[in-house]
Amino acid sequence: MFDQLFENAVDVHGNPLCLAVQNGRFVEIAAHCESSLAAEVIDLKGHLVLPGLVDGHIHLDKSFVGDRWRSHVPATTLRERLAAEKQALANARPMAERADALIAQAVSFGTMAMRCHVDVDATTGLSHLHAVMTAREKWRDVVDIELVAFPQGGVVSCMGTAAILDAAMEAGASVIGGIDPTTFDGDADTQLDIVFGIAEHRGVKIDIHLHEPAEQGIEQLLRIAERTRALGMQGRVAVSHAYALGEVPTDVVERTAHVLSTAGVSIMTNAPGDRPFPPVLRLRAAGVRVFAGNDNIRDAWWPYGNGDMLQRAMMIGYRSGFYTDEELRVALDMATHAGAAVIGKTDYGLTVGCEANFLVVNAPNGAAAVAGASTERTIVRRGEFWSP
Amino acid sequence: MFDQLFENAVDVHGNPLCLAVQNGRFVEIAAHCESSLAAEVIDLKGHLVLPGLVDGHIHLDKSFVGDRWRSHVPATTLRERLAAEKQALANARPMAERADALIAQAVSFGTMAMRCHVDVDATTGLSHLHAVMTAREKWRDVVDIELVAFPQGGVVSCMGTAAILDAAMEAGASVIGGIDPTTFDGDADTQLDIVFGIAEHRGVKIDIHLHEPAEQGIEQLLRIAERTRALGMQGRVAVSHAYALGEVPTDVVERTAHVLSTAGVSIMTNAPGDRPFPPVLRLRAAGVRVFAGNDNIRDAWWPYGNGDMLQRAMMIGYRSGFYTDEELRVALDMATHAGAAVIGKTDYGLTVGCEANFLVVNAPNGAAAVAGASTERTIVRRGEFWSP
Repeated sequence: MFDQLFENAVDVHGNPLCLAVQNGRFVEIAAHCESSLAAEVIDLKGHLVLPGLVDGHIHLDKSFVGDRWRSHVPATTLRERLAAEKQALANARPMAERADALIAQAVSFGTMAMRCHVDVDATTGLSHLHAVMTAREKWRDVVDIELVAFPQGGVVSCMGTAAILDAAMEAGASVIGGIDPTTFDGDADTQLDIVFGIAEHRGVKIDIHLHEPAEQGIEQLLRIAERTRALGMQGRVAVSHAYALGEVPTDVVERTAHVLSTAGVSIMTNAPGDRPFPPVLRLRAAGVRVFAGNDNIRDAWWPYGNGDMLQRAMMIGYRSGFYTDEELRVALDMATHAGAAVIGKTDYGLTVGCEANFLVVNAPNGAAAVAGASTERTIVRRGEFWSP
Repeated sequence: MFDQLFENAVDVHGNPLCLAVQNGRFVEIAAHCESSLAAEVIDLKGHLVLPGLVDGHIHLDKSFVGDRWRSHVPATTLRERLAAEKQALANARPMAERADALIAQAVSFGTMAMRCHVDVDATTGLSHLHAVMTAREKWRDVVDIELVAFPQGGVVSCMGTAAILDAAMEAGASVIGGIDPTTFDGDADTQLDIVFGIAEHRGVKIDIHLHEPAEQGIEQLLRIAERTRALGMQGRVAVSHAYALGEVPTDVVERTAHVLSTAGVSIMTNAPGDRPFPPVLRLRAAGVRVFAGNDNIRDAWWPYGNGDMLQRAMMIGYRSGFYTDEELRVALDMATHAGAAVIGKTDYGLTVGCEANFLVVNAPNGAAAVAGASTERTIVRRGEFWSP
């Protein structure tokens, strides 16, 4: 006897799907089930069932969601942008409250795991980390949030940041970040020595923001891949953005993709609107794990975003020219399984034995859900309908 | 005494707004009103009021909205795509029903006017036009639909199309279309002679699909502008897509923009995901009217789109790098007033004397509504809350 039987659903391919749940976990997943075996039978009316969404790159400390509208202030340099951001954040609602509001919004769309980059530097210290951890604690039963200590102001160029990054690992972060080793810090090897050094010492993962252009960016990717292999960190290092992969000739992409794949370095993209970004299919064909994140959401950097990873999957498909069902499912994978693998989320997916957490989307299959960024959806947690 | 008083709203700038309605029309629009003067007072709770959305380019005859999901079928040539489309449409639900379903969906998002391109050629004859007109008639009180007779299969290269285009004007279309005079028809002057000839003879407007690349596309724009001026058709000619404007150097854009502006030729864009498109701000700075449309929505051409012009405005801003409030309001204008002007929709906007038709959006201002593509909205028609 099952506790719940969710019948008359479809899977990503649009094939019939039935999910049986006992004690909050999947005990049977098949095209059809025997309804008489369940205490409660729920008709999903032909709707699509998806695993929880995974946001592989979010900045919970920066967003003004939950705060008043703040008009974008143009900046001519990165340093100017950083200064404007610090000022805007100082005048905003308390960080833990804003983080809480954004988590609530993301969770309402069906996000069940996130990798969150949190600013850590010598002037903010661990204050952002602590604020985000407060919000994280409140949502601990609902969403897994992996924290990246992110040196937004640089590692080498911002004195004292290395020590704070290390302290962040002690305090609760489990991934160490980095940023543009050459263009920002002017000293690639020193930044990477520090980042990989802490990672090795602490046994934590790495996720580096890389906006450096074309060949210069490719050089950084090769440096990162080389260090990853040298330290045996395959599968534990990611590079976010990596715009360079969208700016170099195909043969360079192919060569770099092979190196990244061999080194087990993953690539995160949000498919930015007005600049080149990594060619998703080419990287995946070479065996590189490519995952998705929303990145900035209504913050000092830009006004876009709402926290919905299904809409993000649509944007990635739209920007990548994904038209076929198979391509659209790639975008969906980036916002679900690929991100879950990077974060190391266990007990995840539509698999017997896993917690019965899933989304029910009004769409005939996964491709249609991505293309239409279907907003009509409900969330099931441990076999029960749930809302935040 | 007013019939309705909508108070505690905000305008696109986030400033206080109150709208008084009598007999279904705006009789007062101000920051604040005297509530005691109204039979019914509606508190809009600080939400944004926008005029109805305008879809400046839609293909109601092509969409599979309201039909089963149809996986995208890759095609290597345009002719192959057209053949695949004809076959898919032949197997789909009746066209009038699909058009009806898409209108219902668009209207639910707040669209109150559309310019709809309808395939017209020697083999389909006026069958698409009649089907869309059937659907249009059903929604006549809710949405103004302007029909373009669109020679999807070419004018010169598809024998007999010229006569059918002319017949379409007789049958109910009020705009004549065209498509890629050189790359598709191989004879720019002959196509344009036919299109402008019918427009002159019938006194109708023109809207030409132009996908031709770079300098070649610019040449067509100049040809179209020249003919527009020669016939005194300023303000009555539009070019849809005009990708070329996104593919040529800035000085060529500037020169072309000046010519388009002088000739009164408007440009429509949907901000495609993976190819260059017209630089909106540069064109507008030169005085060119640039308006927005959804273009294809879940059809044989591509799987994206849902009919929401506010989401389209977001995509246009996202693709154009619009970050400031002023830029975001440009995207909003493209999906409202600019499109209304092209279509020639009268009795439109938040203006005393106009029908009291508007959207109430849960957003603090127009910029925020665009950036977040706010889905939480209600529709008011003639002073009454309305749903399809």
